[in-house]
This record gives sequence, structure tokens and C-alpha cells, in this order.
Amino acid sequence: MASIPQGNLIRPNRKTNGAGVQAEDTKICVVMVGLPARGKSLIAQKVVRYLHWLSITAQTFNVGQYRRQATPNPTAAFFDTSNPDGEKLRRAAAEAAVDDMCKWFREGKGLIAILDATNSTKSRRRWIKERCDAEGIEALYVESKCDDEDLIMANILEVKTTSPDYVGQDPEEAAQDFRNRIRNYEKIYETIDEDEADLTYVKLIDVGKHVIINQIKDYLQSRVVYYLMNLHIKPRSIWLSRHGESEYNLAGKLGGDADISSRGQEYARLLPTLVKQSAGEGRKLTVWTSTLKRTIQTARFLPFEKLEWKALDELDSGVCDGLTYAQVEERYPEDFAARDEDKYNYRYLGGESYRDVVIRLEPIIMELERSENILIVTHQAILRCIYAYFMNVPQERSPWMEVPLHTLIQLTPKAYSTQETRYPANIPAVSTFREKGSKAKHQDSPACTPGADGGERANPMNGA
Amino acid sequence: MASIPQGNLIRPNRKTNGAGVQAEDTKICVVMVGLPARGKSLIAQKVVRYLHWLSITAQTFNVGQYRRQATPNPTAAFFDTSNPDGEKLRRAAAEAAVDDMCKWFREGKGLIAILDATNSTKSRRRWIKERCDAEGIEALYVESKCDDEDLIMANILEVKTTSPDYVGQDPEEAAQDFRNRIRNYEKIYETIDEDEADLTYVKLIDVGKHVIINQIKDYLQSRVVYYLMNLHIKPRSIWLSRHGESEYNLAGKLGGDADISSRGQEYARLLPTLVKQSAGEGRKLTVWTSTLKRTIQTARFLPFEKLEWKALDELDSGVCDGLTYAQVEERYPEDFAARDEDKYNYRYLGGESYRDVVIRLEPIIMELERSENILIVTHQAILRCIYAYFMNVPQERSPWMEVPLHTLIQLTPKAYSTQETRYPANIPAVSTFREKGSKAKHQDSPACTPGADGGERANPMNGA
Repeated sequence: MASIPQGNLIRPNRKTNGAGVQAEDTKICVVMVGLPARGKSLIAQKVVRYLHWLSITAQTFNVGQYRRQATPNPTAAFFDTSNPDGEKLRRAAAEAAVDDMCKWFREGKGLIAILDATNSTKSRRRWIKERCDAEGIEALYVESKCDDEDLIMANILEVKTTSPDYVGQDPEEAAQDFRNRIRNYEKIYETIDEDEADLTYVKLIDVGKHVIINQIKDYLQSRVVYYLMNLHIKPRSIWLSRHGESEYNLAGKLGGDADISSRGQEYARLLPTLVKQSAGEGRKLTVWTSTLKRTIQTARFLPFEKLEWKALDELDSGVCDGLTYAQVEERYPEDFAARDEDKYNYRYLGGESYRDVVIRLEPIIMELERSENILIVTHQAILRCIYAYFMNVPQERSPWMEVPLHTLIQLTPKAYSTQETRYPANIPAVSTFREKGSKAKHQDSPACTPGADGGERANPMNGA
Repeated sequence: MASIPQGNLIRPNRKTNGAGVQAEDTKICVVMVGLPARGKSLIAQKVVRYLHWLSITAQTFNVGQYRRQATPNPTAAFFDTSNPDGEKLRRAAAEAAVDDMCKWFREGKGLIAILDATNSTKSRRRWIKERCDAEGIEALYVESKCDDEDLIMANILEVKTTSPDYVGQDPEEAAQDFRNRIRNYEKIYETIDEDEADLTYVKLIDVGKHVIINQIKDYLQSRVVYYLMNLHIKPRSIWLSRHGESEYNLAGKLGGDADISSRGQEYARLLPTLVKQSAGEGRKLTVWTSTLKRTIQTARFLPFEKLEWKALDELDSGVCDGLTYAQVEERYPEDFAARDEDKYNYRYLGGESYRDVVIRLEPIIMELERSENILIVTHQAILRCIYAYFMNVPQERSPWMEVPLHTLIQLTPKAYSTQETRYPANIPAVSTFREKGSKAKHQDSPACTPGADGGERANPMNGA
């Protein structure tokens, strides 16, 4: 093996990123279309989260919120098309939302706006198109069409308990009123069809089972469409675990392809029990590991199908591979400080940044969005990035989250958030967590640091 | 700027690649569906080229080729459904093709097979599904539906002059016979509809204008579908140029962000004329540059809309940025040799490999597939990768192609190949081309090397 260079090195200052391939002056308005309780807001919120994860600025403009400023607690009658006052107020709300959106674009605040409303008539959609055309904004219509009664009922249940329209009301009455509201919309609802062949649109039928795409114009549009194609909203969980403690963890070294330690092996043997505890008896998962020994060894005793993914390999620490944090600090003092300064964008010499990792993880996220029952055994930085996607953790924070060894994490996406449960194995391991600005001390007494049992202590990731 | 390290460095041995994110045991059969002259073979061939470019092994199984072994020059009557002999022979050809495909998968020869035939009836498609199911192969049906008479006629014209079925025949008679053949298929043709809702399929209507997607199952499928979504087959050209000679070219240095030389400026001033010569008077192009000064300066006088793309920045040479080849050879002798050994996969320390570049260029290729009238001003390695995609150049060869400075290249995709025309500016420039295994000598006498005028000499890229 070649010798390790001393001192600072020329920093490669270029980086590729998800947004970098898009012309800067793109303006896209994603116009949601669909009856109430068809998951429109859920889809809107997922698109925003996904774009933020890729460093693309996006914002939702929810017409309902504008309408509530004038009419906080409307009954279904308000949404009756034969009620001219209701119609007028709803139109005013749509205009206010579109005005604000246009202002947002004009001020250069982002690339993608999402107009979240039913937009249920052709004339309404035509009006939005004209507004967008006048401002040089591309309109991309996303219709969610769904006849799955279970899905609609689940949405109604969600709404009756969480919608600001029904605050303080009896849930049963709220549900009944909401059903009436849907009926009022059904009277005038027009699905997107051949009359609107000039529009750029996606029709999602039963969320991703069947998709119709028309006249997609550019890369960012096609990227959003591709994401939408991959969504499903069946109930499911995702399980995440770091590999068991490795020999490199014990030595406090970065990277490498070491075997797991004897405590790591203990964790590997316990992992099937933890999974059973979390997922229930008899649930069949698929296990994804990286191609590195420590994740494969950790997954060894799980009685499930396993797949190795190169994209799940640990963040490549380049020339620092095999060093301890103390050695990095000693040999590359400027690098060490630069990484603390902007850990998300810092690219190890000959290696990767968190930003690089997010790009290579995108297909994994796409695949996770499509899948059910996946357990991922991977590495600290990779787990942070996947976790950040699901928990909407901002980039300033995601590279600094503590993810203890020997802990199984269950994430359960809900309508507007993701639930987290942790299952600590209570098998001691070194802590590989280093706080921002702190000295690299953990490797001085690797075997003695407890810390990472993940037990009852306050969880720094929970604020996410 | 920090000092440059001497000697060899630890080589980062991990790489991400397009195929790396896919489970190794995937087997996908892309089943083409459609009447003759709907561009099926063209689509099949594009998919294979795209997958190869991404290092994913794929192969086409063309039922017509199998049929021709028994019946080299059939007339339309052969394709008449009331002709039992023809029917039997065509069925036998389909069986032989599917048999060979299954064998190809069983021998682990690739991930994606394309079954190129009309597959025009539901019963035929069902039969293929059963064969695939039995072998653990996922069937992905791709129907090309097209009622655009111009497009169909263009295809018929193509077929009558190029199809092996009509070798040596009068073109007009061939065209007439082919039209009759289509009519015979039309009698029995069944488009994919609700009856086949259990199939994974994509319907491409008028190539990309309207797309219907059903039951996509995994990442690689969705990737192929995404590519298909982005295809169009309108006639068009793509123009490519390297930046004008830069100060770094003169000094024989790698990378950097230098200004163009006075000869480079001369090229920049001439470029609009070359473009007019190639594209014709009044044709409106869009110019894509990288974010580096030398491409922006080169595009300066072009009277078109311009977009800067980070993804078009030159291959990042990491620690070698700013060095000459001679310095690289001296300071990193092992690296220098390793790069010669496998230039496609060699990743500069702190930088990129050609493989890395291909991954970051994928969105550019997608965008190019959707666009018309694009002129790209970029860098040697980037141009090689884009060129390799269009000209189907294998990975062993693409990093070694000579792309001279001060030359405009026009690529015109045709049905089964891409035409190339070069427009040399006849403005002298240094050659930045280094042959495999050669000493790095060009920077010794940078201003004296002629070589790169791209004139009449034999072109090493033409064999591609």
C-alpha cells in the first residue's frame, strides 16, 4: 500500500449535484388536480421533501389555507357550486395563492411551486395555465384519481381528525360533512382528458398502479414525473440498522472494509430477534446491505432474501480511508476544520461528500418508495442520508445526527410525517459520533466509550 | 494554494455506477409490441445503446431474423393470418427466439433482453408472459402506437431500402408489399388494454407525446421506462465543439479554469460562421456550455440562447488539476500507468473517472433525447462521453478518441446509426491528445504541435 501524503492537498472545488443539471431560470408550477381525499396534499408534501433533499428549492401554496383566512370553518354548503358566495370566496383564495406564487418566482425564491387545491374544472385549469404562461412558468398538472374506497376512507379519517376546517368539532359530524363536501365537488369534477391534450400532465391512477403522461417538456419536469411514478401509499415500514461494531470502529479508524468485532457478531446474532420484535412474527422482509463485509456479516443471520447494493457503501473518505480522526486532524488540519465548517458539502480528497452520497442514493430512495418491507443494513453516513430523506432533516443538520451502533430503527411513513421507533440491542459498542467542533477523541479509548446503546436517553435525531 | 503531494497515494477503490444500484439477479425481457413500421426496432436499438453506455449488458432477439432463416424473402401473403403455413413458421421463429433468450439469461450473459417482434395479439403476449414467468424473467411490454402517417411512411421508406426481406427487389414493389404486410397485421392487431392490466407495460403513443404506464415493478424497469418517456424521433442534429484553445492547453496543463488563448478567441469569433455553414442560415439553436470560463468565452459570439450546465464541466482531475502530463507521470508514476491500463474506470485521486462522468452526464443525454437544435460547447472528456453515446463507441475505446480543438462536429441521428460531419476551423491549436502508452510529450512544445486542425486526415473516431 502506498504511503499517505502529509499536509494539505489541492481541494477539488467542483461538485455535481441534483440541481446543477437544471438551467437556473426554470420555473415549474406543479398544479395538483383531484377530488378531496385523493392524497393530493400528501403527494405535494412528498414532492417538496424529495426536492429539498436534492437541494432543489420548492414550496407549496395551499389554496385551502388562503380560503380559511376568510372562512375558517365552512360547512359542505360552502362548497356547493350553486352557492355563489362560496364560489366567489374560493375563487378569491385561488387568486391570492397564485398571486403569491408568482411573486415567489419573481423574487427568485425557488424553482418549483406546488399549487395544492382541487383545481377540479377545465376552466380553472385553463385560467392557471394563462396565469403561468404570462409569467414564463411551466404548468405541470398532476391529477390523483382514485376509486379505491379504502384509500379514500383512510384519507377522510385523516382529514376529520387533523383538518383545520374541523377543529373542535365532533369527528363523526366532521366526517359526514366532509363526505358531503366531496359530493359537491363530484358534481362539477372534470378529469383531465383529450380536450386538454395541450397541457403537460400526469394522471396518477390509484397512486402509481397506472400512470398517464402527456407532453412532458424538460428534465426537471420529467424528474418530478419519475418520482411520482414511483410513489405508492400502502402502509409499510422501513427498517434501518448500521452494521455491528467493526474492527475499524474499535481502532477508531475511518472507512476500510474490516470484519465486525466480537460485539458486532453478538449484535448480528441478536438482530433477527430485534426484527421480530419490531416487524412481528412471520413478516417477510427483504434485506439490503452494502457490498462491504461489515454489513454482510451483520445481516448474516437474518432469514430473509438479501441484496447487496454498491450504492449503500459507506461515504468514501478517500485519502483519509484507514486513518483515525486524530490522524486526519494532524495530517490535514485545514481539511478537518473545513469539514466541520460545511460537512454536507465537504468532499474528502479522493472521496465523497454527503452531497455526493445523496446523488448516488437517489435510486435507492426511488426503490424504497416503491417497495414494502425493506430492512437496510448500512453505514453511518448512508443511514444519515436515508434518514434525512424520510424525516425531512435539513442539510445543516443531517451529517451531524447521531446514529448509534447496535440499534434497529423502524420508520413508518404516515400521511404527513414519519414515525420512528428504536430498538436498542443493549450490546455495548464504541461511539463513532463526533460532535461539530469537538476534538477527535473517541479513538483514544475506543473500547471504553459506552454511549451508543441507544436506550432511553434523549434522542438527538428526534427533533428532525 | 496548498503544495502538491509527491509519490503514490492510496487509491479509492470504490466506484458507483449505473448498474451498481441494481440487484445482480435481475432479468428483464423488454417485449416490443406494435404494427410494422412503428419504430419498434429503432426503439429497441436505442435502449440497447443506452444500456451499454451505462455498463448494463443488454441484447436484442429479433424474431424476424429467426424467421428469415426459414423464409428469407417472404411476400405479404406469408403474413396473412389465413395462411396456416406462414403462421406456423412465424410461431416457430418466435419460439426459437424466446428459447435463445432464455438460454442467454440462464448463462448469465446479461440483465436485459429485448424481444423485437410485432407481438400483436393478446394470446402471443400471454404466451411470452408464461415463458418468462417460468424462467424468473420479468416481462416489460413496450407498445409503440403511432397514427402519424408521416412517421409511418418514413419507416416504410426506410424498410423498403434496408430490410433484408427485400434485398435485390424493386423498391416500389417492396414498399407496396410491405404496406400489404402491414394490412395483414392490422387485421389481427390487438392493442394492450384493460384485459392485460396484470402486465407491466408502457404504451408510447406517437413516440413520447403521450405515455401510459402500468404496474412498473422495479428500479431497472422504471429506468428503462424513464428513458422511453424521453425519446422522440423527429429529425434533428446535435452540434458539439470543444472550447477554443485555452491558456492551460498552451501550457500543457490539465484541468483548471483558464481563459482561452488568442487562437481560442479566433475560434470563438469564427464559430458562428461554422454553425451557419452546418445548420443553415436562420436556424435557431440553443447553446449549452459548462460553467468554466473557456467554454463560456468560446460561445460568446453565438447569437443564441445559452445555458450553463455544471454537469458539462470537464472531468475532474483531482490532485492532478493544474499539472502537466509529464508532472503527473513524474509524481504519480503508478497512477499514470494505471490510467493507461483502464482509462475508463480510472478515477483521479480527488477527482473523477470516465465512468463517473457518464453517470453525471445521464441527465444531459436524457435532455438531449428530448431536445432539438442543441449546440454543446464543452471539454475533451465530456465530449468523448457524449459522442460515445450517440456513436455507440465501446468503453475501451471512448476515452482514447481524438477530438481536435477548433472543430465543429455535427451529429445527425438516423434510424439505425448516427451521421457525423466535421467542420474544421483551420485555426491552429495545440493537440491535447495523448495516445495510450505514449509518453506525455505534447506539453514540451505546446505552441509548435499542429495536428489538431481536423482537416482531411483519417479520423480515428470514424470507425466508431
